[in-house]
Amino acid sequence: MRATLMYGPGDIRVEDVAEPALEQPTDAIVRIVRSCICGSDLHPYRSMSASVDGTRMGHEFLGVVEDTGREVRGVRKGDLVVASFAFQDNTCDLCRANLQTSCPHGGFFSDAQAEAIRVPLADGTLVGLPGDVDDALLPSLLTLADVYGTGHHAAVRAGVKPGDSVTVIGDGAVGLLAVLSAQRLGAEQIILMGRHRDRTDLGRDFGATDVVAERGAEGIERIRELTGGHGTHAALEAVGHLDAYETALATVRPGGVISRVGVPQYAQGPLGFGALFGRNLTLTGGPAPVRAYIDELLPAVLDGTVRPGRVFDRTIDLAGVPDGYRAMDDREALKVLIAP
Amino acid sequence: MRATLMYGPGDIRVEDVAEPALEQPTDAIVRIVRSCICGSDLHPYRSMSASVDGTRMGHEFLGVVEDTGREVRGVRKGDLVVASFAFQDNTCDLCRANLQTSCPHGGFFSDAQAEAIRVPLADGTLVGLPGDVDDALLPSLLTLADVYGTGHHAAVRAGVKPGDSVTVIGDGAVGLLAVLSAQRLGAEQIILMGRHRDRTDLGRDFGATDVVAERGAEGIERIRELTGGHGTHAALEAVGHLDAYETALATVRPGGVISRVGVPQYAQGPLGFGALFGRNLTLTGGPAPVRAYIDELLPAVLDGTVRPGRVFDRTIDLAGVPDGYRAMDDREALKVLIAP
Repeated sequence: MRATLMYGPGDIRVEDVAEPALEQPTDAIVRIVRSCICGSDLHPYRSMSASVDGTRMGHEFLGVVEDTGREVRGVRKGDLVVASFAFQDNTCDLCRANLQTSCPHGGFFSDAQAEAIRVPLADGTLVGLPGDVDDALLPSLLTLADVYGTGHHAAVRAGVKPGDSVTVIGDGAVGLLAVLSAQRLGAEQIILMGRHRDRTDLGRDFGATDVVAERGAEGIERIRELTGGHGTHAALEAVGHLDAYETALATVRPGGVISRVGVPQYAQGPLGFGALFGRNLTLTGGPAPVRAYIDELLPAVLDGTVRPGRVFDRTIDLAGVPDGYRAMDDREALKVLIAP
Repeated sequence: MRATLMYGPGDIRVEDVAEPALEQPTDAIVRIVRSCICGSDLHPYRSMSASVDGTRMGHEFLGVVEDTGREVRGVRKGDLVVASFAFQDNTCDLCRANLQTSCPHGGFFSDAQAEAIRVPLADGTLVGLPGDVDDALLPSLLTLADVYGTGHHAAVRAGVKPGDSVTVIGDGAVGLLAVLSAQRLGAEQIILMGRHRDRTDLGRDFGATDVVAERGAEGIERIRELTGGHGTHAALEAVGHLDAYETALATVRPGGVISRVGVPQYAQGPLGFGALFGRNLTLTGGPAPVRAYIDELLPAVLDGTVRPGRVFDRTIDLAGVPDGYRAMDDREALKVLIAP
């Protein structure tokens, strides 16, 4: 089958690889109907060390079950399913505490930009969808695999509640869906920090009440103006760079929460009296346990009242994947859908 | 009157200073009945830059109101009162959100190791006590000014609830009262990390179920053994040094909370994927808004069912203050009470 491999910065190739096969009795094989390229795929695209053998890519997919191990009970051949970007047993103590991305038996997919994929722990990982779903809903259903659940996680961890004010840092797919999620949870003021007009316009559609295009000190000053000098109750950080965290520190009010879902590209940072402690700030977030959220978020996606799939602005086939990475890296595309 | 000044590391003097006087119509003057030395006073005692004029010391006190400004309504001459270690209006938005230590009109006391003190914003800061209270209760009532409320804040911010497991890092007065507070909030397992047997014995009286005397990797290993390999739901960090924060990182389970009330003596530290993000940890805490807690904590102190004043193991007069600092710094005394 055809699959995506990354060999080094900017070096994406689509090659023939072996078809996946069942390895464990809890596995399933899924023929992929939709996959996509994630903002987090751009981190290695820019900075990975050159690799002789290449690295398989992709962690978001929905598809049709093709085969199941003998212990799989929840799905069967022919089912349309969506997977969380992490696999997990969904039965252990940590999974039951909605910490699926810490499941001791789990892991992360990294081979979904392909024609088919082996799914470990299929019963804990795959969620069945109606078989007769309209193709037009597939993009929104695919966001349940990662970006919608991740945006939702940012808002949930921040404790967003009716009447709150929220700053969202980053106008990528996760940032925009953090806006949508904050709006769903009742935030009254949602300030989106982003510089790309087409994206921030979509952010307004998703519920942003204000857009701040300025960065750094100027952006922080704008947010102070918009909040009567106080800053917002929460900052949802959907970028992952240190300057985004520092912006979050400056935009929240005393007692506020910084909720990070952008994968930190830094190990150390300010966390002492001046940064967090003196103002009783809370720093939270992490890899979203999206499996925990699919059941809750699915109905409004299925009935079309919530349309997170609007973050996809380009559709390609597998042969188009290298150019899809380039387009996202050049900010020419917001998020690229793959129909293998 | 006599008051305590610090001139440099280890250099504490008790000197004659001017009596405090009303400056604002919202001020009160309080004749101090009990004050004390705080673990946080030891930070400058060890490291402050030499000062020609000296710095007044002390932020915990209870006493009798001697005079009030014309706008003070809540207390009057002759009342026995306890103050929070920060003063605040207790009426603004931030105070009403229980963020009194961020009150824009507030500040921190730094002159309570003395015979009398000027209290700004007296109505927002002083809490009246029964005039006929037994002297034996004064130490416990004094802990409401800081260390009890601060230990309580650590547990509240960590969201400690019935059945939780908690690690408390530090066997100073705040750490011990964090143990007591975690126990009051229903924690099932409370592991106290501390090396001083007399202190950890008091910690057991306050509710610690386990004591870990080992530090660093060995201490972390012991906590893993005590928690089935998982770590605890929360770590209450009552020290303020970077290694205590790093111990907290290693002792909490995925999804856990690190709640700091030890004033951080560091500005930067680990907060990336490996430290916080990858396991969805939450970092919280800060200067305790103790004024918010006094009303809740006072009744059980007054009726003697909760005795946080047991952290005091030495009583001195003002002349004894320099030796009191030395005794706390040498770990000869846990917490020193001052009866001026």
